[in-house]
Amino acid sequence: MSDILSQLDAVLAERKDADPDSSYVASLYARGLDAILKKVGEEACETVMAAKDGDSDHLVYEVADLWFHTMILLAQQNLSSDAVLQELARRFGLSGLEEKASRTT
Amino acid sequence: MSDILSQLDAVLAERKDADPDSSYVASLYARGLDAILKKVGEEACETVMAAKDGDSDHLVYEVADLWFHTMILLAQQNLSSDAVLQELARRFGLSGLEEKASRTT
Amino acid sequence: MSDILSQLDAVLAERKDADPDSSYVASLYARGLDAILKKVGEEACETVMAAKDGDSDHLVYEVADLWFHTMILLAQQNLSSDAVLQELARRFGLSGLEEKASRTT
Amino acid sequence: MSDILSQLDAVLAERKDADPDSSYVASLYARGLDAILKKVGEEACETVMAAKDGDSDHLVYEVADLWFHTMILLAQQNLSSDAVLQELARRFGLSGLEEKASRTT
Repeated sequence: MSDILSQLDAVLAERKDADPDSSYVASLYARGLDAILKKVGEEACETVMAAKDGDSDHLVYEVADLWFHTMILLAQQNLSSDAVLQELARRFGLSGLEEKASRTT
Repeated sequence: MSDILSQLDAVLAERKDADPDSSYVASLYARGLDAILKKVGEEACETVMAAKDGDSDHLVYEVADLWFHTMILLAQQNLSSDAVLQELARRFGLSGLEEKASRTT
Repeated sequence: MSDILSQLDAVLAERKDADPDSSYVASLYARGLDAILKKVGEEACETVMAAKDGDSDHLVYEVADLWFHTMILLAQQNLSSDAVLQELARRFGLSGLEEKASRTT
Repeated sequence: MSDILSQLDAVLAERKDADPDSSYVASLYARGLDAILKKVGEEACETVMAAKDGDSDHLVYEVADLWFHTMILLAQQNLSSDAVLQELARRFGLSGLEEKASRTT
């Protein structure tokens, strides 16, 4: 599953030059930052609601929606999921430094 | 950066058996689902605020916080980030099926 | 301005028996609790965004939207804004007991 | 219950000159806009969670918390609940214009 986020980043970057009518992502870019942020807020709320319902399939679906819209947000700001993964790695001492993670997580 | 999420999943799964006083993650598990969901809501709000401030470093930091707490939520529900990645791959036809992604994203 | 919330409560209660196609509120009731909660989450997010923009008129508009949708939620649960006002009065020792409020707010 | 919001507005305005250590509200003002907005986001999330639990008393409590923190936000921006009530009255044709409300709500 390793390259899915970077593949999706590439798709999202490519959509930035697309016709707003050509795809959902292109239309969100065209509507601008506030429209993207509203979707992030919405998907977070739906994640909370799916978890309260105790429905695992729905929860996975909503977390995917939430991550997807945060990736659109990152792309719109000329960032990518790679920066997020690097921050998580730094924070938790991952990519080999498991001892540090044991102490700080 | 490919294995960071699966490494973090492993750390989060391991913390489920840990003493609540031993780490932040263990203490969140002990406080239960609602405490985790409040953190998801909080981090989503902070992501929106960082984006409105136009501060890229802060935005990456908050998205990392948001993803991290959704991963704690998944772990608490005996799920993992792998299910989210599979859902994103399925939805966008990733891992090779780039043509389909071009049409539907 | 004193009776606006109770007037609005009365309108919202009346809409519960209305045809879903007859008004926005009636259609929200028909879509059920989750649809109402999504609107509460959305309006909270838009309130945060309007405040970050420093736009007073927009902020008032979004807070009105947020209160309005929480009142729809209360009505859907057979509650009203009166219960919220009573809770605020109790909590802050209002309706005459200003000294207590001075000490505890 | 008519004057509770205006009484609370008066308390909140008064706290703006208070020592940050003297009360919760004064400490929130001192921490600034972002701290207040995080509370608005948090209380919205808790409102959604209380509604999903179907607990009426808890729901009223959380909506009161949400309204209270939006009123702190309004006060911090030199606004008050009166502006919100006026917006609701305008929007729904309240304070006498019930026929208009019947058509548009």
